[in-house]
Amino acid sequence: MPPATPAQHKFQSPKGTRDFYPADMAVRRYIESIWRKVSINHGFEEVDGPTFEHLDLYTHKSGPGIVSEIFQVFSGKDEEQIRSIRAGGDAPFALRPEFTPTLARMVAAKAAELPRPIKWFATPTMFRAERPQRGRLREHFQWNVDFMGGDVRTEADAEIIATAVAALDKLGLQPGDVVVGYSNRLYVQEILIKTYGLPEDNLDAMFVLLDEGTKIGPEQFDQRAIAMGIAPSNVDWFSTFAGVRPLEGIGRWDTDSVWIEPLKRAIQQAGVSEWCDFRPGIVRGLAYYTGTVFEIIAEGERAIAGGGRYDNLIESFGGPSLPACGFGMGDVVLANILHDKGLLPEEVIMQPLRPHVFVISSGKEQAEAELPKLVAQLRRAGYHVRHSYRSTRNVGKLLGEAGKARARLAIILGDELAEGKVAVKNLDTGEQGEPVSRDGLESSIKAMLSAVDV
Amino acid sequence: MPPATPAQHKFQSPKGTRDFYPADMAVRRYIESIWRKVSINHGFEEVDGPTFEHLDLYTHKSGPGIVSEIFQVFSGKDEEQIRSIRAGGDAPFALRPEFTPTLARMVAAKAAELPRPIKWFATPTMFRAERPQRGRLREHFQWNVDFMGGDVRTEADAEIIATAVAALDKLGLQPGDVVVGYSNRLYVQEILIKTYGLPEDNLDAMFVLLDEGTKIGPEQFDQRAIAMGIAPSNVDWFSTFAGVRPLEGIGRWDTDSVWIEPLKRAIQQAGVSEWCDFRPGIVRGLAYYTGTVFEIIAEGERAIAGGGRYDNLIESFGGPSLPACGFGMGDVVLANILHDKGLLPEEVIMQPLRPHVFVISSGKEQAEAELPKLVAQLRRAGYHVRHSYRSTRNVGKLLGEAGKARARLAIILGDELAEGKVAVKNLDTGEQGEPVSRDGLESSIKAMLSAVDV
Repeated sequence: MPPATPAQHKFQSPKGTRDFYPADMAVRRYIESIWRKVSINHGFEEVDGPTFEHLDLYTHKSGPGIVSEIFQVFSGKDEEQIRSIRAGGDAPFALRPEFTPTLARMVAAKAAELPRPIKWFATPTMFRAERPQRGRLREHFQWNVDFMGGDVRTEADAEIIATAVAALDKLGLQPGDVVVGYSNRLYVQEILIKTYGLPEDNLDAMFVLLDEGTKIGPEQFDQRAIAMGIAPSNVDWFSTFAGVRPLEGIGRWDTDSVWIEPLKRAIQQAGVSEWCDFRPGIVRGLAYYTGTVFEIIAEGERAIAGGGRYDNLIESFGGPSLPACGFGMGDVVLANILHDKGLLPEEVIMQPLRPHVFVISSGKEQAEAELPKLVAQLRRAGYHVRHSYRSTRNVGKLLGEAGKARARLAIILGDELAEGKVAVKNLDTGEQGEPVSRDGLESSIKAMLSAVDV
Repeated sequence: MPPATPAQHKFQSPKGTRDFYPADMAVRRYIESIWRKVSINHGFEEVDGPTFEHLDLYTHKSGPGIVSEIFQVFSGKDEEQIRSIRAGGDAPFALRPEFTPTLARMVAAKAAELPRPIKWFATPTMFRAERPQRGRLREHFQWNVDFMGGDVRTEADAEIIATAVAALDKLGLQPGDVVVGYSNRLYVQEILIKTYGLPEDNLDAMFVLLDEGTKIGPEQFDQRAIAMGIAPSNVDWFSTFAGVRPLEGIGRWDTDSVWIEPLKRAIQQAGVSEWCDFRPGIVRGLAYYTGTVFEIIAEGERAIAGGGRYDNLIESFGGPSLPACGFGMGDVVLANILHDKGLLPEEVIMQPLRPHVFVISSGKEQAEAELPKLVAQLRRAGYHVRHSYRSTRNVGKLLGEAGKARARLAIILGDELAEGKVAVKNLDTGEQGEPVSRDGLESSIKAMLSAVDV
């Protein structure tokens, strides 16, 4: 009898975070494995940093306002930290809300010894102190890919975009499913000032408005644009430029611009043109972008990914002046889209988790003694091996359990064991050949699974 | 010219956390990949939970004292949370210091629908608000493996131990390098009370003393043992039992005990006897253990792993009464030992990160145009492909760069391109055969890399 339990308390995960049960985890690992493989195939090397950083790493570039958007962290052991917070201060640490400050700090710390270009990727977990919504959680995973240094800016921009596209392609998405909208902040700036006569002082505010763009709707967009200095007679045209109104007029926007044409050509050379579209009004929200900017959009969803060129950021963290370009792609919106399009079929997701072998004992003494030895031997040889923990020795029932576990082969330890043989059944085809020798079983299995990566 | 930079600030990672540069990350991924592969091959399924949990998930079992050992977390957006902390309260969340409470919460939440036994593993990051020391950081990764339910306690204990051993084996360690010391709390309890006459009220305190054991040295151990009720005439014998004095006398301890003998036999059946040793004094520090306990020890280091049976824990988190056994293995001590024993050779660690192909252009116009196309084509085909970003077109220098990148093959786009052919050099052997057809290049490469998993 278990001891009487105390009054029960129902524990739950914090709002906006996730419990990954095996089926959820299989999806997460599937996406992460494609992110990693594509990154490595494109010549990026993996890095990571701490889950929490000093708070001032984030206030440094973003200003003190950011403290109200992040989770703050302090040591429960450190009296001084606790006293300081109770006296009205902030906590000394923050859960990372983005990876770029960590990246800039790491590059700055070892700038002299790192070979150029520095091509890094990471798949860290990130945190936002916000109300959770569809596509936006308090903790999520984000693929970060960055190309720093090397005197090849446009080529680097295109390579970064091609890397993002390669992952979406491998995940089964088609060019029509998503659009990589790209532009350049210097192009937008030129248009704003030269074509629309925007006062230079309003540039930053206008970038914020352009980034909010479609979220706020045409009326409010027009009002705010006019208030910043866009002539009322130009505002229809301007909202098309911004992508707030339909893009039919897009032909009017100048892809021959010195800011756009070379990138367009590099995207073509990288073989991803059909995924990409010039969207003049894209500027991205983060103030540190200095040139090319892009976001990957699926109809009716938040952006899947966003990125761009940030040539001054690493220097501002104490590093060298290093041109840089990168993007972040979160797991939440991406998984929603893959799920909605039926691109997470169970047979694909579970494929790497299928047992190679399910070992069954018919219950005879010799079989019972053999089972743990065989299981241990095959696991040591690198196979994924399972067996039943139930008390039944009904071979039919146990074959059913093997099938439910998605095992490829069943090994049945039965009467033939007296002659040193065992039965092997292919559970995919249902075939069961002549019993094979127990001694040579490991190589028999190897042959039968030859198509399988062990 | 870059803009003049503001006064520079040197940013650093928080004390006791790590920056993973590519070489560090390769080691971490190497260890994690073996943890994952061994877990899956032993039939465990992967899970994960949030990085931060409600603080009361930890105070529930461990009492309020734990708040001073963990990092506390609050939302910078939530006025109420901030007010509560400033008024002297704790933060609402904590960075997870261990995985077992999350595991128990997750099992409790879906107990009815989870098939038994529940065999789960995880490789989460963990946090401790402590002064960093060798083998002990503020953030580290921990492999957790748990076997819950299924009416097979001793077999489950042995399987858990065999899983831990399989990873150490695959990482290159030998039975002599580490010892899996095992015991059973019920056995220890019986000896303490029956053999040594320890008052039952002192049992918990004695478990704490036994766990501190070797850390505090024989004199202090003896004093505290006597104070708790061990007869001074028995204290030498007792300190041998505890493992505080040399273990020569170990033969005197009764492995025929009903608490020890079945586990010993199951360990034998699982094929890992030579890694394991009965160590009667092992009890482990966590109060929730109820039976088998074990730790994996290397001379002169903190424990590599520790675990045991915790049959009442899941019920205490609102779940069903479910027998359970598991262990945790951190990455820090393990990596230190592997490093000291030369078991992290660069060629092993970097093997999965080697480029398949390095593409070189001789500088001719046709070659320059072909390079980005070929790179894109081979990456799309699943190969890890690199090329130079330098302006040199000196093929010798570029072959040097390819070798430094550890590429397997170099493809040289030279004069033969005019006839639709390219040169391919095997960088491992130095061989360069006849030029091959550009059109059939993908299959030529596939054949040349046939030994390689693409």
